[in-house]
Amino acid sequence: MKLATVGEFGLIDRISAQFKAPENVTGIGDDCAVIPQSCGLDTIVSTDMLVEGTHFLLESTGPEDLGWKSVAVNLSDIAAMGGKPTGTLLSLAVPDSLSLEWADLFISGYRQLSDMFGCPLIGGDTTSAKDRICINVTVLGTVPSGEARTRDSAKEGDLICVTGCLGDSAAGLRILLGNGQGNEYPQLVRHHLRPTPRIREGLLLARCPGVHAMMDISDGLGSDLRHILDASGKGAVVDTASVPLSAQLRQYCKAFGLDPLEPALSGGEDYELLFTVDKDQERILPVAHTVIGYITEPGEGLVWKGSDKDFLGYRHF
Amino acid sequence: MKLATVGEFGLIDRISAQFKAPENVTGIGDDCAVIPQSCGLDTIVSTDMLVEGTHFLLESTGPEDLGWKSVAVNLSDIAAMGGKPTGTLLSLAVPDSLSLEWADLFISGYRQLSDMFGCPLIGGDTTSAKDRICINVTVLGTVPSGEARTRDSAKEGDLICVTGCLGDSAAGLRILLGNGQGNEYPQLVRHHLRPTPRIREGLLLARCPGVHAMMDISDGLGSDLRHILDASGKGAVVDTASVPLSAQLRQYCKAFGLDPLEPALSGGEDYELLFTVDKDQERILPVAHTVIGYITEPGEGLVWKGSDKDFLGYRHF
Repeated sequence: MKLATVGEFGLIDRISAQFKAPENVTGIGDDCAVIPQSCGLDTIVSTDMLVEGTHFLLESTGPEDLGWKSVAVNLSDIAAMGGKPTGTLLSLAVPDSLSLEWADLFISGYRQLSDMFGCPLIGGDTTSAKDRICINVTVLGTVPSGEARTRDSAKEGDLICVTGCLGDSAAGLRILLGNGQGNEYPQLVRHHLRPTPRIREGLLLARCPGVHAMMDISDGLGSDLRHILDASGKGAVVDTASVPLSAQLRQYCKAFGLDPLEPALSGGEDYELLFTVDKDQERILPVAHTVIGYITEPGEGLVWKGSDKDFLGYRHF
Repeated sequence: MKLATVGEFGLIDRISAQFKAPENVTGIGDDCAVIPQSCGLDTIVSTDMLVEGTHFLLESTGPEDLGWKSVAVNLSDIAAMGGKPTGTLLSLAVPDSLSLEWADLFISGYRQLSDMFGCPLIGGDTTSAKDRICINVTVLGTVPSGEARTRDSAKEGDLICVTGCLGDSAAGLRILLGNGQGNEYPQLVRHHLRPTPRIREGLLLARCPGVHAMMDISDGLGSDLRHILDASGKGAVVDTASVPLSAQLRQYCKAFGLDPLEPALSGGEDYELLFTVDKDQERILPVAHTVIGYITEPGEGLVWKGSDKDFLGYRHF
């Protein structure tokens, strides 16, 4: 039987079934694993792999942008838990025909984002690959004991909120692949190439007791919100008219005859935060956000109000 | 300029130059990064990438062995610091044409070694690859504050010691690639496919104040001992007649007309421990080991007594 038959999440379920996390440890299934320490802080850790041909194309992604993004997507997982990043490890498999200039620029971009968040590279592995580049980054961080925000804490009646706008990155990728002129839509392309992890916002939200479940949007809201609903055992209604869309995304979709909800709900790599909050606490949140729906009873599924489509998000296989 | 011009360690130097580890943190350049906590334990963390075609061939490596080895090579880095492993993260990029059976067997082997050391999988990433499998494992562990053994602590006059025998794994690989019958040399093949990390030995050695520098032998003694000498600013004499060689390795090398010192000193993947110890403390070490030489003054380089060859170890590019 092919792996594709069970799909990416089927594979993850098969793996999870083999491993039981130790007591107090949050294991497989959240943005980060959480390992309690005895000194008031929990260690949080996450890992992400970027494969040439799957996550990026050398022709359309410059090495400096790629270095930036390799760190950014990992720091976004720390943001999703409400944590502070402390260091990263980089594994880099490269064909030995690659230029030294490429490697230097990659490291330069990696360093730019690392410096922005005071999160240095503290280790890693370098190896040769036959043809395609493969990058793996692991990030470590800390969160005050017991305050990490996980996916399983959404409560019925919670409002569903997101930071920023959705869909810019998916449209930016579409442009990089040849559908449109990047200089007409610089914000879309930039959001795809140089996402900024919402570390500051995550830290602030984790200080608000009314904020319950939280995760980052990496595979599209249609996929990621379902993770919160599955983990929390809840349903949800999303008002598609409330989904925050940037002016450039609207303009781009109009020019190309696209429904902007497609990149916004099924596209990936926005790296915004998705969280649920007690409805009485939403008004006092210290972070700019948009309310896009609310959590319902278990069994009600995910309802897209205002659209007759379903939005599934991105799956790797 | 091609990356191959500066080589793997040249690339690591270029990366290290860009990142300064925070105060108290042991960063790039050892088997693990060491992050002090405030509760008597330091967190140690390491990462290793295995790429199809570079580290393994699907034809000669079964999925269960590969799963085992993916964890083993990482736990060996924890052993090298004298630490106790606490959990791993697995990133797995696989072509979607791969069979589910392959994935299940891989996870089964991964679990067997994890269970042996009480070190569960606590997170990871799954993604699709166009053609080749890429595996990255990150391992976390702990070590009592300040007791991690690093590469920079060898002292002049220290004896140089190794656990186990060297060269079995390199010979095992040679057999798997078609040079010899595996059933005649089962120990060599097994050492290559299912190395056992020296966790127990590392923990015991780290309790001995006389044990100074320590690392694991992954790229061959000729490469790895040089890392200790470089980091410690010392030279060394290795008595090649003392290098521990298994009976099967001698027998295999005799049959194929090879110098057994080649696999033992230039081959990789033994995953034994290499350490230096105060010469007055060597006799009371609680771990089986072989003395193979001693540390000399800086500037004396690495002298192979009893052989007119040089042994460089394995380099990726």
